Amino acid sequence: MNRPRDKTPPRLGEFEMIARVFAPLARGVSGAFDLGDDVAILKPPPGHEVVLKTDSLIETIHFRHDDPASSVARKALRRALSDLAAKGAEPAAYLLALALPPWPEMAWLEEFGAGLAADQAQFGVSLVGGETNATPGPLTITITAVGYVPDGRLIRRKGARVGDLVFVTGTIGDAGAGLAILNREPGTLSSAEEFLISRYRLPVPRLAFGQALRGAAHSTIDVSDGLIADLGHVAEVSGVRIEVDVGAIPLSAPLRELGGDSLDSRSGAATAGDDYEIAFTAAEIAMEAIREATRLTATQVTLIGRVAPGYGVSLLDAGGAEISVERRGYTHF
Amino acid sequence: MNRPRDKTPPRLGEFEMIARVFAPLARGVSGAFDLGDDVAILKPPPGHEVVLKTDSLIETIHFRHDDPASSVARKALRRALSDLAAKGAEPAAYLLALALPPWPEMAWLEEFGAGLAADQAQFGVSLVGGETNATPGPLTITITAVGYVPDGRLIRRKGARVGDLVFVTGTIGDAGAGLAILNREPGTLSSAEEFLISRYRLPVPRLAFGQALRGAAHSTIDVSDGLIADLGHVAEVSGVRIEVDVGAIPLSAPLRELGGDSLDSRSGAATAGDDYEIAFTAAEIAMEAIREATRLTATQVTLIGRVAPGYGVSLLDAGGAEISVERRGYTHF
Repeated sequence: MNRPRDKTPPRLGEFEMIARVFAPLARGVSGAFDLGDDVAILKPPPGHEVVLKTDSLIETIHFRHDDPASSVARKALRRALSDLAAKGAEPAAYLLALALPPWPEMAWLEEFGAGLAADQAQFGVSLVGGETNATPGPLTITITAVGYVPDGRLIRRKGARVGDLVFVTGTIGDAGAGLAILNREPGTLSSAEEFLISRYRLPVPRLAFGQALRGAAHSTIDVSDGLIADLGHVAEVSGVRIEVDVGAIPLSAPLRELGGDSLDSRSGAATAGDDYEIAFTAAEIAMEAIREATRLTATQVTLIGRVAPGYGVSLLDAGGAEISVERRGYTHF
Repeated sequence: MNRPRDKTPPRLGEFEMIARVFAPLARGVSGAFDLGDDVAILKPPPGHEVVLKTDSLIETIHFRHDDPASSVARKALRRALSDLAAKGAEPAAYLLALALPPWPEMAWLEEFGAGLAADQAQFGVSLVGGETNATPGPLTITITAVGYVPDGRLIRRKGARVGDLVFVTGTIGDAGAGLAILNREPGTLSSAEEFLISRYRLPVPRLAFGQALRGAAHSTIDVSDGLIADLGHVAEVSGVRIEVDVGAIPLSAPLRELGGDSLDSRSGAATAGDDYEIAFTAAEIAMEAIREATRLTATQVTLIGRVAPGYGVSLLDAGGAEISVERRGYTHF
């Protein structure tokens, strides 16, 4: 783990920071060398491939300055783990590149490390390497997650087939609503608002369910840009059209309580992003396997549409008429 | 490869940027899925472990705004490859996380991509995944390099033994002098100055030599923080003292031409950093193997000291007296 290379004297004592915050996260982990070598080494179990995902979380873009350090750390890690989850991979380890502006105090960093420690225990991963640097810009956390998948069993985006059914785990739109609440003037929060904020701050990667989808799903994607935008990626690489029934999009009770249950609120949820649910397509014959995966992993799954010939994603009302969506997620402008 | 998630309209057209700049770097690469899936997959050759290193390059901290885009890209990649080189690993692939401020134009990004393409061809690596984000801060490039090493053959930092000789490849201090030249008022540059700037902008990872050191060296480190600081890391984890003869520190002819050959200039070189040479220790009995590695890979290697009992790093003058060094590299304050 390299130390910050800024030429001004450090605010925190970098050796102290590494020793107190990061080294404990790698202690005793094979191939991490206590963060005391140039690299980390790993070896996949026999018959497995290595799965890699790199993902950055940038202050003001992906998190707010007043988000708790612990949830910032956990969200950074969970976003990368969510990509592994959607592909049916088992997480193993991660590397961390941290660009630190002048503001973090040791107390903030210790809470950051405590968040990582909690998630390491929860998801069975360990820090194996990384570096810290000073930056004149915003705090930027780049996680490279490493996982394993049995040879040839990775579930691809490219695989949706005409006739497949389309599903999504959990509920959609909560995180977007949570962020909107945080962006308002501060005030007393209802329990529904607290729930939505927690969904923004602490997504849950669907790891067990993703692994259970191996062999059952034809295509999967992690919902981060927005349900419609992400299904658009699946449709594009698979060469198909995806139809989504707007009335079927699963909304949480707190989201319905606050935002109502109109077509507008459902199509808003489908373009909000930051959900970290798994959207997937599967043949009708896989329904029993999906029900079993749902039961074994206690994961809510909702049938939201179907795969048709053509291209793009259509949002359909109850009569099957196409609803125009103004903003299809972060990647469509 | 995710697209930028900034909510303001893009300056460049992110789809165009990915399609024109990054997708060609991954085209046809197994496990990269044309950057069109959530993750990348890799599999080490039989009998090999996976070697991982993540490393960030931040504008104003690690490169200058006026450094050419091509050399910025190549330096980012080469810094990470240099860590693999020092450990005896063969590079295979890399992931790229790019935080983009408002300023880069498509022409800049295309030159950036061209730099990566040139280095991919030179070092036998491919882009397999990554993401781009907008940032309100400086341009930040995080590379995660992936390599392979035969099982158990990684050369560690922890391994220096009392009685070992200490060596370094190439010459030391060039990059630091090159940066100092760039930080002066602009003017006409001599060829010596041009050489030193090129050493700052375009380090050469010692990949073939590092692999040739497997079985010959007891310990290795990539010289990035500064020769003395980095040998200090080796001494610390190995539980030994390292003595460096200041007169033996290899200086390039351009550096001697501009900076002279005094004790001061040599100890300055030994604390400048950004060298990306390999410092290593080996038993005297390995001298023949080292000579052979030197010859086969056309790499300059200089004997600069020895490993003794104790701790820390000492810089010794011709009479064996210890020279005090004010600044031991970026990590000592």
